Amino acid sequence: MKVVKFGGSSLSTGEQVKKVVDIVLSDPERKIVVVSAPGKRHPSDEKITDLLIACGKKILEHDSETEILNEVIQRYILIANELGLHESFTAEIRNSFLQVLQKDKSDSVMFLEALKASGEDTNAKLIANYFQLRGIEAHYINPKDAGLLVSNEPGNAQVLPESYHRLADLSSHSGILIFPGFFGYNEQGEILTFSRSGSDITGSILANGVGASVYENFTDVDAVYSVNPSIINQPKEIREVTYREMRELSYAGFSVFHEEALIPAYRAGIPVHVKNTNNPFAPGTRIVNEREQRNGPVVGIASDTGFCSIYVSKYLMNREVGFGRKLLQILESFGLSYEHSPSGIDDISIILRENQLNSEIEKQIINYIKEELHADEVKVEHGLALIMIVGEGMRQNVGTTARASKALAHAGINIEMINQGSSEVSMMFGVKEVNERKAVEALYQEFFVGVLV
Amino acid sequence: MKVVKFGGSSLSTGEQVKKVVDIVLSDPERKIVVVSAPGKRHPSDEKITDLLIACGKKILEHDSETEILNEVIQRYILIANELGLHESFTAEIRNSFLQVLQKDKSDSVMFLEALKASGEDTNAKLIANYFQLRGIEAHYINPKDAGLLVSNEPGNAQVLPESYHRLADLSSHSGILIFPGFFGYNEQGEILTFSRSGSDITGSILANGVGASVYENFTDVDAVYSVNPSIINQPKEIREVTYREMRELSYAGFSVFHEEALIPAYRAGIPVHVKNTNNPFAPGTRIVNEREQRNGPVVGIASDTGFCSIYVSKYLMNREVGFGRKLLQILESFGLSYEHSPSGIDDISIILRENQLNSEIEKQIINYIKEELHADEVKVEHGLALIMIVGEGMRQNVGTTARASKALAHAGINIEMINQGSSEVSMMFGVKEVNERKAVEALYQEFFVGVLV
Repeated sequence: MKVVKFGGSSLSTGEQVKKVVDIVLSDPERKIVVVSAPGKRHPSDEKITDLLIACGKKILEHDSETEILNEVIQRYILIANELGLHESFTAEIRNSFLQVLQKDKSDSVMFLEALKASGEDTNAKLIANYFQLRGIEAHYINPKDAGLLVSNEPGNAQVLPESYHRLADLSSHSGILIFPGFFGYNEQGEILTFSRSGSDITGSILANGVGASVYENFTDVDAVYSVNPSIINQPKEIREVTYREMRELSYAGFSVFHEEALIPAYRAGIPVHVKNTNNPFAPGTRIVNEREQRNGPVVGIASDTGFCSIYVSKYLMNREVGFGRKLLQILESFGLSYEHSPSGIDDISIILRENQLNSEIEKQIINYIKEELHADEVKVEHGLALIMIVGEGMRQNVGTTARASKALAHAGINIEMINQGSSEVSMMFGVKEVNERKAVEALYQEFFVGVLV
Repeated sequence: MKVVKFGGSSLSTGEQVKKVVDIVLSDPERKIVVVSAPGKRHPSDEKITDLLIACGKKILEHDSETEILNEVIQRYILIANELGLHESFTAEIRNSFLQVLQKDKSDSVMFLEALKASGEDTNAKLIANYFQLRGIEAHYINPKDAGLLVSNEPGNAQVLPESYHRLADLSSHSGILIFPGFFGYNEQGEILTFSRSGSDITGSILANGVGASVYENFTDVDAVYSVNPSIINQPKEIREVTYREMRELSYAGFSVFHEEALIPAYRAGIPVHVKNTNNPFAPGTRIVNEREQRNGPVVGIASDTGFCSIYVSKYLMNREVGFGRKLLQILESFGLSYEHSPSGIDDISIILRENQLNSEIEKQIINYIKEELHADEVKVEHGLALIMIVGEGMRQNVGTTARASKALAHAGINIEMINQGSSEVSMMFGVKEVNERKAVEALYQEFFVGVLV
C-alpha cells in the first residue's frame, strides 16, 4: 500500500486535479491520498491558505471579510466547475466556509487554526467528490474520525504517539481515501495545524500508521537537485539519497522537503519518493534508509547564510576542566542555541545563527564571558555562510577533503572554518557570506561536473 | 638585564659548568642564573633528581639509602673536584645532604619535596662557589629569602602572585645571582617543587619578577625543530616562533619547553630565547609575542597519539537546545576532560585522551549518554592521533588546508577529523594512530621541503 501526498501547486486547478486522479488510478497500490489546499496557479497568484489567514485577520479586526472570502470560495468553485462537479457540491463548499466563520472567536488563535485547516479539509472533500464522479469508490476521511491526535501547539502541533495504531485501521477501509493534510485534533476535539508545509507531515504520519511500502510525495519539481538551482543552472538530479543525507542537506538551505515531515516515515523505515505531478514518469528522488554507493562520494551541496561566530581565547584554556561546558551554559542562559563549536588549544569558537543576536545582547554576552570565564579575548564575527558537502561514506573516502579545499583555494576563497569528523555523511566549510555563491560553484564544478581537461 | 637558565645536561660535569660560566660572563647583561640539578652525562646515566627520589623512597621504606646517597654526593664531588673547588666546600655538600635526610619524615610527601629540591639547591651553591673561585662577585640566592612563594601543591606548586614584586628586588642586588630552579616555599616556610622540568618555571618567574629584557633558556639542542626529529631526520630549525604557536606545538608532542614555564614570561611580554650550551653561537629559537610572517604559513608540525572519540548521534539533535552542554556535563561528572567536539547536524563527537577511560567506565558512559540524552547511537573509537600544523596567520592563507589535505590524500591517509576555525594559528587533523608517522612525513614534505619537480 502506498500513501501519496499532493502539494498545493498540484491541486491549484481542475486540470491539475485531473492529473492527480490519473496518477492515483494508474497504480492500484495508491490507496491513501493526502491533499494540500489549492496553491498558486502562477507565480503572482495567492495560496488558499494565505487568503484564509488574511480573511481570519480581517474578521478578528472586525473588518469586512466578504471580498477575501468570496475569492476563496470562487477558487474552489472554479475548480469544481472545471471538474464538472454537481451544483449541490458547490453550495456545500460555501456553507462549510460560512460554518467555520461562525465558530467561537473568543480564542482568536484557535479560531484561526480552524480557518486555516478548512482549506485542506474542503479540498479533500472536493477531490473525493471528483473521484466519485469518475465512478471510483473514494471517501473523504476526517482526521478526527481517523484518530489523528496532536499536541496543543497551534501552528506547530506534534503528533501524539497513540495516533499511529488508530490510523492503522485506515488500511482495512475500502476504496481510495482522501485525507486532508496540515492538521489534526487535540484531545478536546479542537483543530490544530502543523507547521507550514504540514501536509508533508500528515502524509508521513499516515505512511507510518498504515505501514506503507512507500510514501510518494508529489510536488512540482522532477527531483531533488544536487545543489540549489538558483546558484547552479540545471544542476544534476539526485536519484537516491539517504535520510541522513537529506537531513544534512535540509539543514543548510535545501527546502524541497519539510525536515520534520521525514521523521515518522524515517522511524518506520519507509522510503519517501519525491515525484513531479506534471511529469509523473520522471524517476524522481527516493529517500531511503540505505543506498548503494555510486557516482562518487558526494550526493549534494547545500549552503546557508546568516551565521556568526563567538571567538573566545584564554591562555591554558585546555587545562581548565569544564570551560567549554560553562561557555555553552552562558549562551543557554541567554536563550541562544548554537550550531558548532570548533576548538583550538586555548580557544573555542561558537558558531550560531546571528538572527538570535542584536548589538545589545552581543555586548552583554561578551562582557559576561570575559568576566565569568576570565577570558583573554572575546570577539564576534558576523556574516558567515556554511557550505555543506554531503554524501554517505564520505568519511571513508581518502581525498574528499583535499578535493573540496583545493577547489575552494583555486577559487581564491579562504576557509574560515572546517567542521569534519563527527558526521560520517557531511563536511562543513565556513566561508564569508560574500563568497557563498563562488564557493558552491567551485565545489559543484569539482564534484559534479568533473575536471575540465 | 637577562635571566639565564641552564638545564641539567648543561651542568652534568665540571667541563659543562665551565662552559656555563663562560657563557654567563660573555654578556654583562646576564645577571640572574637559574640552575637545574646535574643531569645525565650520557644516555644511560641517571639524573641527580631521579637518584634523590630513589634515595628518599628507600629511607621511607626503612631500607638502606647509603649507596644511592653516596652516588649523589660523589657526583657533586666529581664536579667540584673538576672545577678545583676547595675541600671545605665538598664537606659542606655532604653535610647539607645529611641535614636534609635528618628532617622530619612524619609527612613523607613533604620530606620527599625537600629532598628533591636539594639537588638544585646544592648545585646553585656549587656554581656560585665556582664563580667566586674565578674571582667574580656571585651569590647563591635562597628562594625563601628572595620571596618565591608558592601554593601548597606538592610536585605541582603554583607561584603566588605576591612573589613577583618581592623578586623584583633581585635586580638591585650586586653581582651575579645563582638561583636554584625547581622549587619555592609555602607560607609556612616549607619547600614545594614545581612539576618536572620546573627549573624552566623558576627562570620564567624570575624573568617576570625583575622585568628581564629576555629569558635565555640554555639546553642541549641548537633550536626548537619544526617537527619531531625522531620522525624526520634533521628537520628545519625554527628561528622565531610566537607564544601562541609554541603553545599549540607543545600541546601535541613538542617537549622542548615545559608548557607551564612560558606563562610568567608570556604575561610580562618577555621573549624567551632557547639556546644550546654546547653551541652558544648557534642562533637558537626565539619565542616572542609577535613575529614577522616569513617562509610560508607553517612554522611547525606536531603530533600526539592516545586519543579516542565518543560519537553520539540523535535524529534532530540540532533542534535540542542544550544537548551539547548536557553531554559535556555528563563527561565532567565522570571526571573526564575533553579536547575537542566536532559536530554535525545530528551528531557530535567528543575527542579526549583515552588514558582517562577503561572498559568499565566506557561502558558506563555509553549507557549513561544513551539513557539520559535518549541518543540513537553512542560509540567509542580508539587509537586516534592528532596532527597539528601550526603557524600565525595560517587562517588568512588561502590554500593551506588544500595543501595539507592533498598531502595526506596523496599519502593514502584518511582524515578522521578536521578541527579548524577557532585557532588562527593551527589546524588539526585526526588520523588513525598507525598513520601518524606517515602523516607527519607527508605534511613536512609539503610545507618544509617543497614540491619535487
